[in-house]
Amino acid sequence: MNVSIHQDRLNRELHELALISDVPAPAVTRVVFTPADLRGRTFVRELCQDAGLQIREDAVGNLFARWAGSKPELPAVATGSHIDAIPNAGMFDGTVGVLGGLEAIRALVRSGFQPRRSIELLVFTAEEPTRFGVGCLGSRLLAGTLDASGGERFKDRDGNSLDEVRIKAGFHGPLSGVRLPAGYCHAFLELHIEQGPVLEQQQIGLGIVTAIAAPASLRVSIEGPGGHAGAVLMPQRHDAFLAAAEIALAVEAAVLSSGSEDTVATTGVCEVFPGAVNSIPSRVHLEIDVRDIDQTRRDEVLRKIDRALAAIALRRGTAIQTEIINADPPARCDQLVIEALRRGCQIHGAAYEFMISRAYHDSLFMSLIAPAAMLFIPCRGGVSHRPDEYSSPEAIAHGVLVLAEALAQLAE
Amino acid sequence: MNVSIHQDRLNRELHELALISDVPAPAVTRVVFTPADLRGRTFVRELCQDAGLQIREDAVGNLFARWAGSKPELPAVATGSHIDAIPNAGMFDGTVGVLGGLEAIRALVRSGFQPRRSIELLVFTAEEPTRFGVGCLGSRLLAGTLDASGGERFKDRDGNSLDEVRIKAGFHGPLSGVRLPAGYCHAFLELHIEQGPVLEQQQIGLGIVTAIAAPASLRVSIEGPGGHAGAVLMPQRHDAFLAAAEIALAVEAAVLSSGSEDTVATTGVCEVFPGAVNSIPSRVHLEIDVRDIDQTRRDEVLRKIDRALAAIALRRGTAIQTEIINADPPARCDQLVIEALRRGCQIHGAAYEFMISRAYHDSLFMSLIAPAAMLFIPCRGGVSHRPDEYSSPEAIAHGVLVLAEALAQLAE
Repeated sequence: MNVSIHQDRLNRELHELALISDVPAPAVTRVVFTPADLRGRTFVRELCQDAGLQIREDAVGNLFARWAGSKPELPAVATGSHIDAIPNAGMFDGTVGVLGGLEAIRALVRSGFQPRRSIELLVFTAEEPTRFGVGCLGSRLLAGTLDASGGERFKDRDGNSLDEVRIKAGFHGPLSGVRLPAGYCHAFLELHIEQGPVLEQQQIGLGIVTAIAAPASLRVSIEGPGGHAGAVLMPQRHDAFLAAAEIALAVEAAVLSSGSEDTVATTGVCEVFPGAVNSIPSRVHLEIDVRDIDQTRRDEVLRKIDRALAAIALRRGTAIQTEIINADPPARCDQLVIEALRRGCQIHGAAYEFMISRAYHDSLFMSLIAPAAMLFIPCRGGVSHRPDEYSSPEAIAHGVLVLAEALAQLAE
Repeated sequence: MNVSIHQDRLNRELHELALISDVPAPAVTRVVFTPADLRGRTFVRELCQDAGLQIREDAVGNLFARWAGSKPELPAVATGSHIDAIPNAGMFDGTVGVLGGLEAIRALVRSGFQPRRSIELLVFTAEEPTRFGVGCLGSRLLAGTLDASGGERFKDRDGNSLDEVRIKAGFHGPLSGVRLPAGYCHAFLELHIEQGPVLEQQQIGLGIVTAIAAPASLRVSIEGPGGHAGAVLMPQRHDAFLAAAEIALAVEAAVLSSGSEDTVATTGVCEVFPGAVNSIPSRVHLEIDVRDIDQTRRDEVLRKIDRALAAIALRRGTAIQTEIINADPPARCDQLVIEALRRGCQIHGAAYEFMISRAYHDSLFMSLIAPAAMLFIPCRGGVSHRPDEYSSPEAIAHGVLVLAEALAQLAE
């Protein structure tokens, strides 16, 4: 089998997709079901159609592009990722697994390979939690870990429900129909940028992911009486933002005392109301993300944060409410899929290292319903979720080549 | 002279103005030069015209409504306040001094009083700093403490300059023409809700203000490299929001160690970028307000904040930039105007107390170009800048009666 990757074309497609964005290049903002996201979906759908793949989209907008195998009744081999992007993100997170996955399939078609199992490209809806506060909406629904009530329950900041927004975007039907039937996938592989510095620093070509860290996220709402910044003396204040500041620092302290450098936590969202220089903050909305590869350790950090919140509420005289948005278990990757990736690396002479993913991925949920693993490509400075996120065309092509080899093995 | 206040009508007018807002009642949002602010101006302008006053508006939108005296060449006696409101504010801050000032003039007209000096109602543009970051835009320009370059320099969050916005709102001409000629005002009086709890707690009818606290405000911008919330380990982070949290707490600590309970400081604005739960904050914008009736003590707090900022920047590895938006001197009120208010209280049997204003007012700047003083009305719970801000119609009418008496004395 002589598989060759069209590196320049793939690079051009990645750049074209990056221009479909709500902010000027090199930054990318493509939040789920916004016009930019819908235009991005059309771009990918048309490329899949050009490649001769059969398209279907489910009720939440997950896209399946299928290359039918000679035994189409067998469980398929799938690969894919997402194209949504947080505000002011970069152009490689997710997209490399979508356009790279498509190029892997096109390369196999070009090589004359005839798969026994069908090979499918999956484009997951809303891997990023930006709009509805929950990440991996599409893959959670496919795996059945999220029930259809989420359609009404999840609302964006303007109060629109997921159901309202998806239906307006043209994705109809009940969310309960999104769940994949048991045994749908024989294997799932996701190509992705590392989003960390290990591969680059150690000059290793590729990373084969053996486990994905367990993320938990919280929404915290803090309320106090507010008041005029000139008129209310300090002893009479119950400033919601000062409570929020203490919370963010307590989150950091809880993580730093976890005993492992694998624990991380971030307060990435802080919205202050009314948000005027001469008004004491009366309400603050925080969103906090805690991750670890060890669930026990992560959950101990969550308990420490809970205790800190109670102490701060009492001391500051502010009301504090917490809502756990998700607290998913970590995923172990599948040995057979890992082995297919390892053999792909060997066949193409690619240096690789086994590693852990500290970032959230759709593979976390796909691993619940299919043997799954991930392949990481180095990215410059370990940087992601920023406009200067970068992986070289060579590194991407290298990953796509190994992915194609692994898909072929698993589909044979 | 038999002066009587039309309490019900004034109360109705205050409620009508409150409905001209970007948020549902009882909350009021009326930010300068938004459609709500422009509709509010029209409402007030038409009431002034109905009262037979001569209207003029200057290049920044300050409105002058004049009742000509028998010696119109003499410096006028002026009263007034503002109608702009911060997001989710109440309905009395500023508006009581505008519609109450108008009712004081109407009451004097009704009584048959013939003023020797002209009496003017002033409605100041943008007392609140919400849109352009600087409070008292209109009165600063009248007093000449702000030069015309502010028209291009001050920008709102969408990047529109004050000049662009005011001209679009219909206020043309050079800002340099706004400054009042020397000796324009014989006296300036401002009726206002207290925005503090003293009058209500001590059951005193009215407060005669003898000094206005000296406010200073800062903009602080914090930058770090950001990154993915899962992938960047804690020791590699330079989280801009954690630096901001430490800054807010350092501001509080600096104030609490000032040695006087008259010192207050507030971090009322905190904007976090990119503002996603899975992204380490790379940029935070803070706005901080520091006030004291003693300028030396206030400036010592500013120096403490500066030292804390430098220490936090160094320890966190974040870039921190500070800009002082304003640092105005405190105002002493004028003895003759204070005496006119005191006599007004005596004539109408009103209990009063001399007090200090801890809130920012247009009187702070008017006192630079005219003998000035303020009259405070009690407000429930000392609450302001909130939807539940409240002063009773009786308290307001009482203040308007004393104001009318003082205006008459000073205009005779």
